[in-house]
Amino acid sequence: MDIRNASKEELLTLKAELTAQYDECCAKNLKLNMARGKPGADQLDLSKDLLTVIATNEDTVMDGTDLRNYGGLDGIPSCKALFAELLGTKPENVLIGGNASLTMMYDNMMRLWVFGDCNGSTPWSKLEKVKFLCPVPGYDRHFSICQQLGMEMIPVPMDDNGPDMNMVEELVKDEAVKGIWCVPKYSNPSGAVYSDEVIQRFAALKPAAKDFKIMWDNAYVVHHLTDEEIEILDIFEEAKKHGNEDMIFMFASTSKITYPGAGVACMVASENNMKWTKKLLGVQAIGPDKINQARHVKFFGNAAGVKEHMKKHAAILAPKFQMVLDMLEQNLQGTGATWLAAKGGYFISFDLPGCATRIFELCKNAGLVMTDAGATWPYGKDPQDSNLRIAPSLPPVSELKDAMEVFCICAKLAAVEKALG
Amino acid sequence: MDIRNASKEELLTLKAELTAQYDECCAKNLKLNMARGKPGADQLDLSKDLLTVIATNEDTVMDGTDLRNYGGLDGIPSCKALFAELLGTKPENVLIGGNASLTMMYDNMMRLWVFGDCNGSTPWSKLEKVKFLCPVPGYDRHFSICQQLGMEMIPVPMDDNGPDMNMVEELVKDEAVKGIWCVPKYSNPSGAVYSDEVIQRFAALKPAAKDFKIMWDNAYVVHHLTDEEIEILDIFEEAKKHGNEDMIFMFASTSKITYPGAGVACMVASENNMKWTKKLLGVQAIGPDKINQARHVKFFGNAAGVKEHMKKHAAILAPKFQMVLDMLEQNLQGTGATWLAAKGGYFISFDLPGCATRIFELCKNAGLVMTDAGATWPYGKDPQDSNLRIAPSLPPVSELKDAMEVFCICAKLAAVEKALG
Repeated sequence: MDIRNASKEELLTLKAELTAQYDECCAKNLKLNMARGKPGADQLDLSKDLLTVIATNEDTVMDGTDLRNYGGLDGIPSCKALFAELLGTKPENVLIGGNASLTMMYDNMMRLWVFGDCNGSTPWSKLEKVKFLCPVPGYDRHFSICQQLGMEMIPVPMDDNGPDMNMVEELVKDEAVKGIWCVPKYSNPSGAVYSDEVIQRFAALKPAAKDFKIMWDNAYVVHHLTDEEIEILDIFEEAKKHGNEDMIFMFASTSKITYPGAGVACMVASENNMKWTKKLLGVQAIGPDKINQARHVKFFGNAAGVKEHMKKHAAILAPKFQMVLDMLEQNLQGTGATWLAAKGGYFISFDLPGCATRIFELCKNAGLVMTDAGATWPYGKDPQDSNLRIAPSLPPVSELKDAMEVFCICAKLAAVEKALG
Repeated sequence: MDIRNASKEELLTLKAELTAQYDECCAKNLKLNMARGKPGADQLDLSKDLLTVIATNEDTVMDGTDLRNYGGLDGIPSCKALFAELLGTKPENVLIGGNASLTMMYDNMMRLWVFGDCNGSTPWSKLEKVKFLCPVPGYDRHFSICQQLGMEMIPVPMDDNGPDMNMVEELVKDEAVKGIWCVPKYSNPSGAVYSDEVIQRFAALKPAAKDFKIMWDNAYVVHHLTDEEIEILDIFEEAKKHGNEDMIFMFASTSKITYPGAGVACMVASENNMKWTKKLLGVQAIGPDKINQARHVKFFGNAAGVKEHMKKHAAILAPKFQMVLDMLEQNLQGTGATWLAAKGGYFISFDLPGCATRIFELCKNAGLVMTDAGATWPYGKDPQDSNLRIAPSLPPVSELKDAMEVFCICAKLAAVEKALG
């Protein structure tokens, strides 16, 4: 039955059925969670040897440096080389950070806010108004940074190829628009992969603001879920053609390669931006944890080692994603719901206009925690109340099945309620 | 001979002798360094077991948390408890950071600069003028933070009991004076220990600025060099008596307990300041490296374990400090030079008015790197050109002896040159 064309009687019958199922769910006192993109314990177990790969005093010398002591503002050479190989850049364009690319992004935004960019632009904090472009659905932690700094966020719709570039090109004519957040590969949450055309248009942007910055969060660069290891264009190479290299900051980390809490993050930037960053960063820090960098270098050896390791993650994750997709397919036909079969990353983006908040509440009351409805939009406000982010990675398969059963009942019930008006 | 009372002839003879000695030094092509307070390799070797104390997947669960995964913004409970015991506070007043208290101090200053304090004060960046008090001689990295933010730094003289509190109490009548840097125990570089009276007067301060903040850098809290394990008054306890708890931020780290590059840092603050910090920090970070926290907890067990460990550091460091003091005593009598026999910390503060820059240059040309002359003063400008910071920890004893021979020759030569006018 297609709920959208059903009679009132049919809908009432269905609602009664679903309500009975829902009440059964609630009675089970479930405690399920599909809220955040956390790797499961079995994924974390894959990196066990990381813990002991640096074990003796002798192991703590690498690249001729005592890793235990002070120093190394931009990271140890071999760790910069590892990330450079992985990200297709040169080591001198890589800055190694601590355990979180989020912190590197925040600190980069803060530097622009307080000090102005590498070409001596006015610090954004001194301007009347700063606007930032936010492709939607997007990553709530990106938006929180803008919100904390009091920027005005402008949503830009995404499709399977990335953000709407006509709209981006139009919006950047406003000098108050200072930048944009991008997750170019296996986007959070839609899984979209930016097309060559989208990346080329980003690289060629001519914003009115000379200090416009692209925050290129390459969080899922090697996080494939299928045998198709999708590669995207190198935005720095493209930007070079237009003299736009200073416009781009790229971020990545091993949070979802080794350990979310104890991985290594990095930033990639132009020569000018590296100089600017290191000068300012040198007052904030002496250097990130070099022993943990060395652990990663020794554990992986090289980029091929990382890619091999990611296949083990995919072997664990792909069946979970497939189960979610299968259950959506089986249960939510004819409800108006849509979703994307992501080929990588950590999320499945789910849309059912007018129902997201209600689905979230129903799930919550049945013991299933989902990411807040609206979280994928700036200010937590989804104008269509449509999008929910499904994170299948953390629960074991058996729990995931329970969680998706609850989710599908809740989504269908919300759709029926909406159809009944 | 006392250089200050010597005849011109005597001085010229001495100068010729010293110059000959100096030329001999230069001819050796030495490569010595007494510049930074880095622990030596033998000290770092003491923490070898830290590397392997968390070795299996099972080890990565502590306090009921998977240390490998996301979370834990303020640190794991057992690590907060360890620092709380060490610093005489409650775990709920402790915030664990990454590997650097410097970064925690910088970020705290940045939060005050951009967002204003826990009581909703005007962000310092919005004020016409912000002044900060800097006890001298002091720590260059503290001063760099103020300088980067464009604050006006006001030097406050230190003696053996801490900063000149009459001057502090006078200066804080100016509402533009927003804070002060303090290293209350074994101060960097003088080794001074703040007296009870100084701490009580800090705790009782009534600055004109309601958002005045004391940056209490307890970097050397357990870093004794003698059997006398000096304890100072708890500034938070004292501040409570005056309702001044929100005025104080304390910092500490294991940088000079385990590893400078891979230790654990923390901040201690009032309940209000903890709430304020966590709210803002939650946008910058998900949580610091929990595995490294657990390593420290398991390696030390408790505060007594840390104190036991510090005795091993003292056994290595104390002879180095003694050698420096002995050589100063033997060689620099009658030059006008003064120094302090620190009972803890990492430095010996050396003074010879009008000679610091010349000594630094002479040392440099003879292959001995010292901390820049002036570095212990705001803007790197020592008005008396007097102070140099000697850091005896890094060189092995044999090199340290060579370094101090060079240093003493240079200092004496500079004194003679000055006496000759």
